[in-house]
Amino acid sequence: MPDSMDDLSAQLRKGGFIVVYDGDEREGEADLMFHAKFASPEKIERMRRDGGGLICLAVGGESAGKIGLRFLTDILRGSGYGNVTYKRTAYGDEPAFSLGINHKDVYTGITDEDRALTIRKMEECVRTENQKEYFEKNFYVPGHVFLLIGRSIDVRKGHTELSLELARIAGLSGAMVMCEMMGKVKALAKKDVIEYAKRNGFPFIEGRDIWGKK
Amino acid sequence: MPDSMDDLSAQLRKGGFIVVYDGDEREGEADLMFHAKFASPEKIERMRRDGGGLICLAVGGESAGKIGLRFLTDILRGSGYGNVTYKRTAYGDEPAFSLGINHKDVYTGITDEDRALTIRKMEECVRTENQKEYFEKNFYVPGHVFLLIGRSIDVRKGHTELSLELARIAGLSGAMVMCEMMGKVKALAKKDVIEYAKRNGFPFIEGRDIWGKK
Repeated sequence: MPDSMDDLSAQLRKGGFIVVYDGDEREGEADLMFHAKFASPEKIERMRRDGGGLICLAVGGESAGKIGLRFLTDILRGSGYGNVTYKRTAYGDEPAFSLGINHKDVYTGITDEDRALTIRKMEECVRTENQKEYFEKNFYVPGHVFLLIGRSIDVRKGHTELSLELARIAGLSGAMVMCEMMGKVKALAKKDVIEYAKRNGFPFIEGRDIWGKK
Repeated sequence: MPDSMDDLSAQLRKGGFIVVYDGDEREGEADLMFHAKFASPEKIERMRRDGGGLICLAVGGESAGKIGLRFLTDILRGSGYGNVTYKRTAYGDEPAFSLGINHKDVYTGITDEDRALTIRKMEECVRTENQKEYFEKNFYVPGHVFLLIGRSIDVRKGHTELSLELARIAGLSGAMVMCEMMGKVKALAKKDVIEYAKRNGFPFIEGRDIWGKK
């Protein structure tokens, strides 16, 4: 039983964690998520401990276009790596990866403090009038926060698109932090994901309950 | 007191973890490391839990050249991102980042199992006669194991170069797995790093004790 969309929206608007499982037919994986505006060192620490995957920041396709962010697949194809660039992943989609970034004021870029700063500033960036100028003034590549670009949820139903759809429904900006939940060796099993969400009071939802509602 | 080079070499040759602190004047950060040949899901899990940073794989400059791996800074400068590409990091060096890769047989690429497979196969790659062909047959970009390219230890003394120097001294191939050790909010403090290494029986060494010995 997924939690209601109202519960999810309320949790996101107060800066809480949510858990999103994409679907048995896709990655079969859950991501721990929260809205980027609320990034803090403590939340990043929690995310790396409880999640264990890669901490990424999803931004909408429109912001990406304004900033000039492209998919890494496109950059690499244009840089002589066309023959090793993913056509499709094992679960059927193109990767959502864009650039890894650091905010200009970080030290190494990887500490909880540094990643939280990069994420909060990038959320400011997507709410700014002149996104491209803000981005070029404030960020460096390559860095330690991995940007993902959301496609339309009609064409891709990955954690990237699901997260941005939830932000939109909650009335928040298009900038969501996410990290895959790892178990022993493999991705955390669905029943353990549900148990984790329940134990921590984090709303849980599956992909089909998001895109099915569109 | 750093452990002896013999202890470090012996530990690497049997597939154990070592702890390398770069120096107070540089990142002021310790990385947990092991040789890539010994990558297993259990080791990746341990590394993400005890380290908490980004799990990366350092390869030597010679292998990178043979494979056609370039620094991400160079790729991005050639792809229209010159104005946001790092000149220098806050600690003074250019980043060592190259491409993030996945082995062709992974599922999502991020699980402990998947990352261990990608790493073990990349270690095979650097020992192969025709590295470029092996790479192009077996790997995809973008992926979840972040390759770092080692420069000469005379010009850069980062964890990347230190790790490869230790592999060389131990008589192992140039492929070392590493992950930054995180503390509360910031990088794990040096005294806590030393205490962690002692408690776990992992040899500990500082950068100057590696490059000073050259």
